[in-house]
Amino acid sequence: MTAEDSVKRHRNIVALVGSLRRDSYNRMLFNAAVELAPPEMTITELTGWQQWPLLNLDEVADGMLEPVTQMARQITESDGVLFVSPEYNYSIPGGLKNTIDWLSRVAPQPFAGKAVGLMGAATGAVGTARMQYQLRQTLVFLDGHPINKPEVMVARAAEAFDANGQLVNEFYRTQVAQLLEALAGQADRFVSYD
Amino acid sequence: MTAEDSVKRHRNIVALVGSLRRDSYNRMLFNAAVELAPPEMTITELTGWQQWPLLNLDEVADGMLEPVTQMARQITESDGVLFVSPEYNYSIPGGLKNTIDWLSRVAPQPFAGKAVGLMGAATGAVGTARMQYQLRQTLVFLDGHPINKPEVMVARAAEAFDANGQLVNEFYRTQVAQLLEALAGQADRFVSYD
Amino acid sequence: MTAEDSVKRHRNIVALVGSLRRDSYNRMLFNAAVELAPPEMTITELTGWQQWPLLNLDEVADGMLEPVTQMARQITESDGVLFVSPEYNYSIPGGLKNTIDWLSRVAPQPFAGKAVGLMGAATGAVGTARMQYQLRQTLVFLDGHPINKPEVMVARAAEAFDANGQLVNEFYRTQVAQLLEALAGQADRFVSYD
Amino acid sequence: MTAEDSVKRHRNIVALVGSLRRDSYNRMLFNAAVELAPPEMTITELTGWQQWPLLNLDEVADGMLEPVTQMARQITESDGVLFVSPEYNYSIPGGLKNTIDWLSRVAPQPFAGKAVGLMGAATGAVGTARMQYQLRQTLVFLDGHPINKPEVMVARAAEAFDANGQLVNEFYRTQVAQLLEALAGQADRFVSYD
Repeated sequence: MTAEDSVKRHRNIVALVGSLRRDSYNRMLFNAAVELAPPEMTITELTGWQQWPLLNLDEVADGMLEPVTQMARQITESDGVLFVSPEYNYSIPGGLKNTIDWLSRVAPQPFAGKAVGLMGAATGAVGTARMQYQLRQTLVFLDGHPINKPEVMVARAAEAFDANGQLVNEFYRTQVAQLLEALAGQADRFVSYD
Repeated sequence: MTAEDSVKRHRNIVALVGSLRRDSYNRMLFNAAVELAPPEMTITELTGWQQWPLLNLDEVADGMLEPVTQMARQITESDGVLFVSPEYNYSIPGGLKNTIDWLSRVAPQPFAGKAVGLMGAATGAVGTARMQYQLRQTLVFLDGHPINKPEVMVARAAEAFDANGQLVNEFYRTQVAQLLEALAGQADRFVSYD
Repeated sequence: MTAEDSVKRHRNIVALVGSLRRDSYNRMLFNAAVELAPPEMTITELTGWQQWPLLNLDEVADGMLEPVTQMARQITESDGVLFVSPEYNYSIPGGLKNTIDWLSRVAPQPFAGKAVGLMGAATGAVGTARMQYQLRQTLVFLDGHPINKPEVMVARAAEAFDANGQLVNEFYRTQVAQLLEALAGQADRFVSYD
Repeated sequence: MTAEDSVKRHRNIVALVGSLRRDSYNRMLFNAAVELAPPEMTITELTGWQQWPLLNLDEVADGMLEPVTQMARQITESDGVLFVSPEYNYSIPGGLKNTIDWLSRVAPQPFAGKAVGLMGAATGAVGTARMQYQLRQTLVFLDGHPINKPEVMVARAAEAFDANGQLVNEFYRTQVAQLLEALAGQADRFVSYD
């Protein structure tokens, strides 16, 4: 693959938004990602997991839920995964984690070999740092390949977004664009050799 | 409070078992805890959370679910909390985390000031270490007071339990008993000064 | 021990300051702790570790260094330990960690059973959060008993201190005082039962 | 670059061995890595850091130590970095961390963009898992690119090595070879796009 091919290639990114609130800051941050994505990148939200039951491995033994299999296929066929999530109690929200736990039971495990971007928004000062480091640890097991930099941790979210839910903070806008750029590069890296 | 009072005092411990499987190793480990508890300690499992929906903060704003309020009250009235959980994808199972996330939204936050014991069983070699350190981080935020030692991480669970689900490994049996003893002591410490 | 005794009791806290810089923000933060300590509390810095060699367990086998033994005794005789440290590369500074590693080799291990307070200052937004959570994990092994709240993570240190090195940010001043108050309470808890 | 080029390319890996003991299990593990390296890979240990002082940023301001600059250059010119380290007190040994802290102050920061492999040996059951996850967190900041799998955590080291210090456990021998293979692949990935 040459650098020129890399520039032209279309990237299909799938996203998991960890908050179920309708107007959450993390949904606004996801919207900003869609807006700021490079021209050759599509970002599609993975939905429906909000209705999944809590993972019970006895039920997995009986056969995988159809929506789980389907979402796993979407991830497998994608060029990369974007997580946009709040931090609950210094770690990954239970709902998002339940979704990851379900998906990880599908064969082939869909996160393996994928380029991964991490973003989060919080009203406090630490952004979602603690959640993101725990998610990185989970990705070691799942063999995902997260971007190191930039780490997009939108702190004091009430000031970073305007009344219409637009990300207006320039520093974070630049970071989001850089992360997506890096995600495209990471996708190239791991696609071309796997 | 004198040491003598401490010996006689009854302790009411509530437990969250992180696996939904009927015959999971972690349920067997919970059963071992009930069996090995000191005479003056009762361990009651908190149940029903398996049916709770994923936490949506929009719904919390409309009023807390009755079963959540009720379980929070059970925790508040207890002398301590015992977590018995597997590790999923190097961290806390989504279902257990969802339960913690719901409970943390009740006022007064029920884990605050509580003595906490951590246990886990896994088929692999690392036990549930990674899960337990992440749970400890969550407990910093929730202001729970986890026991440092012993850290009960039952590895190679298939060998530690017999065909009837009995914990037969003597090393782990001793550890479970020590953890519960330490939990009683921790409960005294934090009850007497709070 | 009654509550009244507790109020009058003198507490002797020893402190490790993780930065070797002469005018570091963490030294300023240590100075603020000395200034804001409750009347019945003395805070003494543990010094000299800056000259210790890197830990080599072959040398430990030959006999412990005298300054290490001596500092371990100071900790053992104290009522609690205060860590005041920067974060280097998202974790504990190597020099401070080397000191902890040496001290942990003395018998009796001096941190066991001690009340512990954690503080840190950084020029960035995340304060020293990542360092503090790693230090908490080390304290599980060392059986120290860290305070959960408040978590003193002085962010944007250049604004929190004035030109004379005084901590002028009122929010952080209150937090430091609260942490030391909590440290005194924690010392009572663990002294009275150990 | 084609797959064929990749096969033939020589890789120059530099290694940091975190234990200062002469006959430590981690040195034996490093020796096993040298033995099991693919033919086109050279692994060179970085030495001399055992004599470096503890990092004092005041001194860095006066100019970097020559041995630090030199080691940083060795890393910069390498194709990847291999860490072979014990776990001290549930985290990175202070001496190794001090070395990383020094090296991170050199410009260009030498770990940036490098493929990284992690290995460790311990006498206990958890191997060096806790140390490795903390080192991975440090690598986020340093922008290193660690291998996800295999995670080489040699547990019960006394049984894994023979009396001559040879790694005799077949499972671990295979893992070490796989890690080095993966490190070569990771080096290709990040070299070709940086």
